[in-house]
Amino acid sequence: MNNASKTIRDPIHGDIKLEGLFLELIEAPEIQRLYDIKQLGFAHLVFPGAHHTRLEHSLGVYYMASKAADQLNLYKDEKEIITCAAFLHDIGHGPFSHTLEHILRDSLNADHIDLTEKLIFGEHSIFSKEEKEFIDSPSVFEILNKHNIDKKEISNIIRGGTDKKKYLGQLLTSPVDVDQIDYLIRDSYYTGVAYGMIDVDRFLQTLTINNNQLAVSKKGVGVLENILMARNLMYSSVYFHKTVRIAELMLAKAIEKIERSNPFDFFKMTDAEIINDLKSRERFQYEIATRLKFRKLFKQAFTKSKSTFDKNSNEILKKLENLKFRREKEREFEEELNIPSGHLIIDVPSYELLKAEPRIKQTDFPIVDQDKIKKLNDFTPVAEAIKLRDIPDWVLMIVTDEKYKEIVSKNAENILFG
Amino acid sequence: MNNASKTIRDPIHGDIKLEGLFLELIEAPEIQRLYDIKQLGFAHLVFPGAHHTRLEHSLGVYYMASKAADQLNLYKDEKEIITCAAFLHDIGHGPFSHTLEHILRDSLNADHIDLTEKLIFGEHSIFSKEEKEFIDSPSVFEILNKHNIDKKEISNIIRGGTDKKKYLGQLLTSPVDVDQIDYLIRDSYYTGVAYGMIDVDRFLQTLTINNNQLAVSKKGVGVLENILMARNLMYSSVYFHKTVRIAELMLAKAIEKIERSNPFDFFKMTDAEIINDLKSRERFQYEIATRLKFRKLFKQAFTKSKSTFDKNSNEILKKLENLKFRREKEREFEEELNIPSGHLIIDVPSYELLKAEPRIKQTDFPIVDQDKIKKLNDFTPVAEAIKLRDIPDWVLMIVTDEKYKEIVSKNAENILFG
Amino acid sequence: MNNASKTIRDPIHGDIKLEGLFLELIEAPEIQRLYDIKQLGFAHLVFPGAHHTRLEHSLGVYYMASKAADQLNLYKDEKEIITCAAFLHDIGHGPFSHTLEHILRDSLNADHIDLTEKLIFGEHSIFSKEEKEFIDSPSVFEILNKHNIDKKEISNIIRGGTDKKKYLGQLLTSPVDVDQIDYLIRDSYYTGVAYGMIDVDRFLQTLTINNNQLAVSKKGVGVLENILMARNLMYSSVYFHKTVRIAELMLAKAIEKIERSNPFDFFKMTDAEIINDLKSRERFQYEIATRLKFRKLFKQAFTKSKSTFDKNSNEILKKLENLKFRREKEREFEEELNIPSGHLIIDVPSYELLKAEPRIKQTDFPIVDQDKIKKLNDFTPVAEAIKLRDIPDWVLMIVTDEKYKEIVSKNAENILFG
Amino acid sequence: MNNASKTIRDPIHGDIKLEGLFLELIEAPEIQRLYDIKQLGFAHLVFPGAHHTRLEHSLGVYYMASKAADQLNLYKDEKEIITCAAFLHDIGHGPFSHTLEHILRDSLNADHIDLTEKLIFGEHSIFSKEEKEFIDSPSVFEILNKHNIDKKEISNIIRGGTDKKKYLGQLLTSPVDVDQIDYLIRDSYYTGVAYGMIDVDRFLQTLTINNNQLAVSKKGVGVLENILMARNLMYSSVYFHKTVRIAELMLAKAIEKIERSNPFDFFKMTDAEIINDLKSRERFQYEIATRLKFRKLFKQAFTKSKSTFDKNSNEILKKLENLKFRREKEREFEEELNIPSGHLIIDVPSYELLKAEPRIKQTDFPIVDQDKIKKLNDFTPVAEAIKLRDIPDWVLMIVTDEKYKEIVSKNAENILFG
Repeated sequence: MNNASKTIRDPIHGDIKLEGLFLELIEAPEIQRLYDIKQLGFAHLVFPGAHHTRLEHSLGVYYMASKAADQLNLYKDEKEIITCAAFLHDIGHGPFSHTLEHILRDSLNADHIDLTEKLIFGEHSIFSKEEKEFIDSPSVFEILNKHNIDKKEISNIIRGGTDKKKYLGQLLTSPVDVDQIDYLIRDSYYTGVAYGMIDVDRFLQTLTINNNQLAVSKKGVGVLENILMARNLMYSSVYFHKTVRIAELMLAKAIEKIERSNPFDFFKMTDAEIINDLKSRERFQYEIATRLKFRKLFKQAFTKSKSTFDKNSNEILKKLENLKFRREKEREFEEELNIPSGHLIIDVPSYELLKAEPRIKQTDFPIVDQDKIKKLNDFTPVAEAIKLRDIPDWVLMIVTDEKYKEIVSKNAENILFG
Repeated sequence: MNNASKTIRDPIHGDIKLEGLFLELIEAPEIQRLYDIKQLGFAHLVFPGAHHTRLEHSLGVYYMASKAADQLNLYKDEKEIITCAAFLHDIGHGPFSHTLEHILRDSLNADHIDLTEKLIFGEHSIFSKEEKEFIDSPSVFEILNKHNIDKKEISNIIRGGTDKKKYLGQLLTSPVDVDQIDYLIRDSYYTGVAYGMIDVDRFLQTLTINNNQLAVSKKGVGVLENILMARNLMYSSVYFHKTVRIAELMLAKAIEKIERSNPFDFFKMTDAEIINDLKSRERFQYEIATRLKFRKLFKQAFTKSKSTFDKNSNEILKKLENLKFRREKEREFEEELNIPSGHLIIDVPSYELLKAEPRIKQTDFPIVDQDKIKKLNDFTPVAEAIKLRDIPDWVLMIVTDEKYKEIVSKNAENILFG
Repeated sequence: MNNASKTIRDPIHGDIKLEGLFLELIEAPEIQRLYDIKQLGFAHLVFPGAHHTRLEHSLGVYYMASKAADQLNLYKDEKEIITCAAFLHDIGHGPFSHTLEHILRDSLNADHIDLTEKLIFGEHSIFSKEEKEFIDSPSVFEILNKHNIDKKEISNIIRGGTDKKKYLGQLLTSPVDVDQIDYLIRDSYYTGVAYGMIDVDRFLQTLTINNNQLAVSKKGVGVLENILMARNLMYSSVYFHKTVRIAELMLAKAIEKIERSNPFDFFKMTDAEIINDLKSRERFQYEIATRLKFRKLFKQAFTKSKSTFDKNSNEILKKLENLKFRREKEREFEEELNIPSGHLIIDVPSYELLKAEPRIKQTDFPIVDQDKIKKLNDFTPVAEAIKLRDIPDWVLMIVTDEKYKEIVSKNAENILFG
Repeated sequence: MNNASKTIRDPIHGDIKLEGLFLELIEAPEIQRLYDIKQLGFAHLVFPGAHHTRLEHSLGVYYMASKAADQLNLYKDEKEIITCAAFLHDIGHGPFSHTLEHILRDSLNADHIDLTEKLIFGEHSIFSKEEKEFIDSPSVFEILNKHNIDKKEISNIIRGGTDKKKYLGQLLTSPVDVDQIDYLIRDSYYTGVAYGMIDVDRFLQTLTINNNQLAVSKKGVGVLENILMARNLMYSSVYFHKTVRIAELMLAKAIEKIERSNPFDFFKMTDAEIINDLKSRERFQYEIATRLKFRKLFKQAFTKSKSTFDKNSNEILKKLENLKFRREKEREFEEELNIPSGHLIIDVPSYELLKAEPRIKQTDFPIVDQDKIKKLNDFTPVAEAIKLRDIPDWVLMIVTDEKYKEIVSKNAENILFG
């Protein structure tokens, strides 16, 4: 069994070979569950090809970490730990990936990385107890123990690394890393939106370690600009596509309205299980689940872009970033305009975007030029400009059922700022 | 609203533009449901990229039919009817596409085309009655009526056409057609298996109508060989991959064991709904659903390839093609070897393959050479050879839970043929 | 003959169909000659796949102009004139495309567009008189006359258009146009450098005409940024790759040193003919031709980047932009360091870059937002930043034979600025 | 210098890294000359993208040999020798690759492999003596000596190997090998004809050595069928495209008619040099060179396909395979129909096809199935059928100047068989 290996065909990277530890990890229930977590939540409602899952992405990040490790001539144990962290970095993702994460954050002050960590340390089980009876595959925690993998180190790397070997954490989590490169290329491939097509070979080839830090040589300046631009364009055209966003807001609203003891209960579900769970709840949850199934989405009734804000509205905008205040305002709308509960949602995306992907505002990266470390900004004005670019193009949006669209549209300014 | 149009990005064909009738059809619940029917059933368990759905395929076939109509200079009304049939041809597919079709066939002597027809004629509703309350989008039947589309003609074309305009039916269903070309390319793209990459432009360019029949010019001989070979290779390496097959057999077994009044009840479910339904049933169904979720599949305990059959075993093989006899044999195994009910499955794939895709054994196509109609076989020996090629490489297989693998392996020959 | 058509397979755009006028133009000697003019001069010395020619590019621009015309619903005669201009826009290119253009400019104050115009108006013949005897294909001039095409209009469009129908000229020549899009995609494909992969469908789809001007809708902002970034990255990594540049400088030097009456004599040559011509000249020309054949290039002995210039050196840099002054300096180097004539070249690329591709510093484009015309810069800070990005990364370079590299390196600062 | 490496971007395989020996070989004049030898002769006259050269192909075969060596766990010295042979296997190709090879064969009983061998052993120089003065890069022979590479072994492998290590020769030359796989994919990419798109990963992954021979495992059956089919389709649609063939026949005729002492004189030329050489010869050679430049090709006046031959014509066909007899017949046509010398060519392609690519009729390959060696034909009827497929679709063709087309067409049967 020691010599066994398995090859998995990936449309992005070609054949990905798994051996030893990774042959066991691929069978772990935490990994297998990722087959049922769509990488891009509801993006398939706009880009019908986007049904790809966290499983493929995890394989892809594993593969890229392995290539980067070879390029950097990492030691065997360094390569093992970084590829292992890469493979496991997303096992804590809840249904529909980032869609529901703010609920976790607001109720428990936790995010998917915290869940990932708990799974790695065996503090949680991915199974319901009924499922457990039929599945005897060892968990990630058990496999890591069996192979004497340093779980603390894995967890550190997933969080961006510790001082000792900064480059390991940076490979997986920094302004430009293999996680982002894999998802940009992969999301491009499955959506058919070409922006994310990145010159991976060039990135890997210019990658280097300097003074315990990950960096690229001067030849890599162009590819970094390329990656930053690709990321930004994918955010504005795919990840924060308005229709996709509306579906996400609807799901989140339906979940929020459920009284529940433990948010982990729904976080370990799959996409399909949470939709099914909704159908067994109250009428509102049933409605949302059915609407999502048949793509009968809420419509945008009001949007406000950045340039239209004055001092007063800006202050209110700040308050609206607070979830509680936002929910109160929604109730105000519902009462004044006679809209059934849950059928109007206020969206203030900027705060959530930053929480979901803090790397979007990180556009610098170390450049090695004649053995000196410089910054990307020393070489190009483009990186800084990308940081200033707006995503998405609305700052405030209200969505509601089609039949309330007109009345909301008329009264929004007044109720919000009046 | 008449001038409205919508563009959908498809990774295969690029931008697909929808107008008029098709703008309404894309919102129909029968079409929207296809978002939740995977094109290749359980293929993603082996090819992790293969999560694409019947919705994308339906759009793709619509697009290709439209390109072919332009190439053939069809009249406007012909183009409307063929593209409409192309768009709707798969709406009757049950969960996991072909996986459960034999159940329909065995219990009702019906297949997904019959269901498609019933939906077109409004004899069925895709909704449960609870869902209906929340979705007011018109059904396919209502939309076709509104636009005065000849539903009988649509249905005829989906079934392969009538004598009057043979070429219309042949565009969609014949040894080589736009349905197959779209799925070959699309399945190649999402699985990453290159075999299905076909020269579509060349096919379209050589397409012609001769004497009321679809044909290609002599220049198209190579592309036809290419398509036939691609189809055959995709069948043996993807569609009939052993592991994919095992997952399908498990699901079918779990469904079969449910007592139920109307098979349409589960046929209108989505992939996720049927898995969820299983979890609410008996212990056996719960087990299968859980195993499929965590990819804890039955293992192959016994296979027999063509060359090893003698007269006696051949006769028994013939009998095993009958579902009832096969199920009896399974019970015999279970009783003799003390295996819990449902945990052993006998597979005789050839018969089902032919039912699911009769076109696999059709390898001829009309060729126009200097205004005379000839046959593909007049130009190349390859087409005939492809027909004789075996798919899959087993003729008989027994799968079971890993713990019974050895005992089944030892006793199979004896119980089957002894 | 009127119904005839011909389909040409292009790896970028697929099948390109030619009919009528274009069937005749493709046979014209001015077009056929483009088979022998490499699109990227000497880029194949660094990117071995880059052997593609102006002929394919001309077909591609024709094809894209035709798609854009359909998208914009142009009138039939507008479509004819813009596709015709697109097809012909590069017929005046000399050997190795832009490589030798500065010679034309310096000696005749003309460029390849002037030559294109002369060919369109029949003021020049592409043949030598010996060739003429064997080729009776009509010239572009004759074909345009036969079809009553307005040659003045063609020439205007190639120059960027006139006031009457600005959008026609802008389609072909403006900050973002089909000429650039085709070459970016095509050069990406043949070099294997991914930067130029642009979302063409999205560009075409958002294209519109507003107030007689070409513009894109707000949805096209991202794709414009994508194109501008792609262009800039292709310039710095491919078109102004240092090694490619050195080969170009060597060829230009060899040509310059020839006494000749009429620069058009060598401008109508093909790549191969000019290399061959060099072999029949003096020893220096023979040497350069042989070195280029076996890639025995001059080496970079000295470079100076922007940040290292002070007031004095900056003044000298300004003077060095003048070709005559540069050549004098070269002679000074040769004499002082005992280098044979022609074996040292000073490169000040910025001026030439701007002459060869003035569009590189044009990064704005009209955006239609709710029927108002705005500027790209109103929507994104990236376009402006791209304009400020440096290409190439040297401001001043000296190249010479390997054996003089060291001595030049030591004395360069002194001879130049001392 | 020992640690130096260089990375070359290939559109097919991505980054190709060269180190040590190979860094020197890439600078050798024999390799550099391949930049000027088009891979597909005149195919660009029909497929405008097909300007790729033997240099890129040589790099590609080197790369694939290196990947195969890793997959097969070859020893370091085995890997060095096979990758070196792969890199050098085409250095003896004359201008326009296979186009002129029959002349070499007929006059000297030699082919491009003999020339390759002579270059490896230093028995020939690729330079003219004037060129030598300016280029001091070491030759292949000198580099191999310096690195103590066994030149005899290199030459053996290029010829298909010796008994000792059969698999090394088979990697490069057997019914399916890395040379063919690279050219099929590469030619597909540059022509845009999709047939040659092969699943390289699958091929490499199933590759194995069994009993000193190269073989694939049973899982590789499909990919072998895929490769054989691809090869056959590329031959009929690209390599033996009628128009490409006519251009080749014209060039060959022009060369044949030159009196010359040593065929090596023109074999070491580049594509451009031989065309230029023709222009300096007699009027006929000048004409052909000019016609090729402007694509003013001879036209097909007569063709005969296989099924139309009877016993008598078949006997004459056999005789026509002999070059001398064919040339006599051509003279007969010229005299009887008053056609100027050289303006009519009889083509009997089958014999030449087999000489140029003997592998086209080799469709078997060893398959390892449960440790036993079987043949591909044991698993599929397709391979044998492919062998029987006709390429090209004419058996006999006469081409001539357009103005003699009609008269030749009328009299051909009579003059040939009458």
